[in-house]
Amino acid sequence: MARSAAQWCPEKCVGELPSLGCKVSTGLPTLTIQQAINGGAKTLVLGFANSGGTLEIKYLPQILQALEAGMDIVSGLHDRLADIPAIGEAALRLGRKLVDIRHSPQKYKTGTGLKRAGKRLLTVGTDCSSGKMYTSLSLHKAMELNGIKSTFRATGQCGILVSGNGIAIDCVVADFISGAVEQLAPENDVDHWDIIEGQGSLSHPAFSGVSLGLLHGAQADAIVVCHALGRQHMRGLPHQALPSIAETIRLNEQAARLTNPAAKVVGVSINTSSVSVEQANILCAEMTNELGLPCFDPLRHGVGSLLGVFI
Amino acid sequence: MARSAAQWCPEKCVGELPSLGCKVSTGLPTLTIQQAINGGAKTLVLGFANSGGTLEIKYLPQILQALEAGMDIVSGLHDRLADIPAIGEAALRLGRKLVDIRHSPQKYKTGTGLKRAGKRLLTVGTDCSSGKMYTSLSLHKAMELNGIKSTFRATGQCGILVSGNGIAIDCVVADFISGAVEQLAPENDVDHWDIIEGQGSLSHPAFSGVSLGLLHGAQADAIVVCHALGRQHMRGLPHQALPSIAETIRLNEQAARLTNPAAKVVGVSINTSSVSVEQANILCAEMTNELGLPCFDPLRHGVGSLLGVFI
Repeated sequence: MARSAAQWCPEKCVGELPSLGCKVSTGLPTLTIQQAINGGAKTLVLGFANSGGTLEIKYLPQILQALEAGMDIVSGLHDRLADIPAIGEAALRLGRKLVDIRHSPQKYKTGTGLKRAGKRLLTVGTDCSSGKMYTSLSLHKAMELNGIKSTFRATGQCGILVSGNGIAIDCVVADFISGAVEQLAPENDVDHWDIIEGQGSLSHPAFSGVSLGLLHGAQADAIVVCHALGRQHMRGLPHQALPSIAETIRLNEQAARLTNPAAKVVGVSINTSSVSVEQANILCAEMTNELGLPCFDPLRHGVGSLLGVFI
Repeated sequence: MARSAAQWCPEKCVGELPSLGCKVSTGLPTLTIQQAINGGAKTLVLGFANSGGTLEIKYLPQILQALEAGMDIVSGLHDRLADIPAIGEAALRLGRKLVDIRHSPQKYKTGTGLKRAGKRLLTVGTDCSSGKMYTSLSLHKAMELNGIKSTFRATGQCGILVSGNGIAIDCVVADFISGAVEQLAPENDVDHWDIIEGQGSLSHPAFSGVSLGLLHGAQADAIVVCHALGRQHMRGLPHQALPSIAETIRLNEQAARLTNPAAKVVGVSINTSSVSVEQANILCAEMTNELGLPCFDPLRHGVGSLLGVFI
């Protein structure tokens, strides 16, 4: 969450505030709340994410301090800020905004699977946190630069934070997963691409339902499989093996064809940060050859090898 | 919803109250609200279900009349009773209970896929409304009669109404679908069977996410495929073709093996009400032969052909 903002909206970030025991950094300068305010900050973004999206009590002092000092708070958690009485009371008393971006006030309809105009690309993953948002945003940016009509459609709290809108699909009532995606990426010009950020994985025991509903609602014409190199097991589940990329392609194409018989995986995006640039180059070349699809690291290689798909 | 109560809890039902334009009947005597109260009724159950679970305003007069006359209200809709101001105010003023059985105050964790003791059976479907609850309750009843340890686990509003507990899984926040099922059907004796009511269908564009999360959370050892004979298309979607039973077996076994490699479809339950008894007998015999699995109509044939699986 913190890195998303630092990476994609650096012009809006003045610094970072380490929380207790935090060992990672966005690379932004470390500031106190008062220093941040002096630097122009108006909002404290809770930059962490955890499985279940719970708001742990250890963050309370910093949140209250920020409210007292004049800041609004943005959270991407399932737990709502105002449901912690101390936060709700302080915000009310001080007139600050509490923004739970994972919760939308929108009402949804159930999905229909009815074909709609316009083109749609969905990123999917072998696992959670495998580069779906990064790949989607990179693609959208590259398409804009190349004069291809596209819109980034955020489906998670980080994507919503950086793009300013979207629907946190894992926070929608289960009956409306695909319906919400149909609303998020509606009918459009025939040459317009919606680049829809994927979530979870069909092979993740906790989140497969979200991923399948998202796939069916997206009616994806093109699918990009995202993979984080070197992972030993599904995120958070040491007993659960990772699926192969080939298996992930097969599973997603098969399922996607329920609502779009022409759905096709068009490329594989690999987070190769665990190996050297040279190793990454060899690996991506080998996989491109093996799978017969462009395989690339969007950070190291860019997404140019995919652009031919959209023209 | 109305039929569920009349079928499975006849001892608790005194009569039915037709709503405006209603053309079906549970077979219970038609009563006014006052007649029902005279007959001992304490609660009005909203006996209808619609896609999206919305509370239409046309039902308001009868609900208010029941509240005024002394009744509590039970609803299985997504919309909450108290969110209609007239209903909320009347209930508060009169001291009546408003029970939204689709909404649980429980907090859920995300799923883990960790193997747990005890056996579990899940009913799945070629479509929505294909007999999953009826089959599950019939199986549970037959198992009790035969001294097999089992518990019925309701996952929808009708199942909750007749069994008195459960989780409406389509109303859970999407991130927690499989986690909620893990809580609903927890570790148990090794010879105990949880009979878990399924929802939707992997092939339904609106509800596939719910079905997949439910399948992964259930870690089903045994799966029963339910099918309503003679349906022309997926419920509510004239453009969407029905999958075959064989395809439904294949899809569910493949997906289920993510969290239980031994998952297996053990039988097919067919609602044959659209044909004669003779035709139903021939059809079930032919399908039993073709699929190599017991195929039966639980209403016409009972579920005895499946009991061998559990002993």
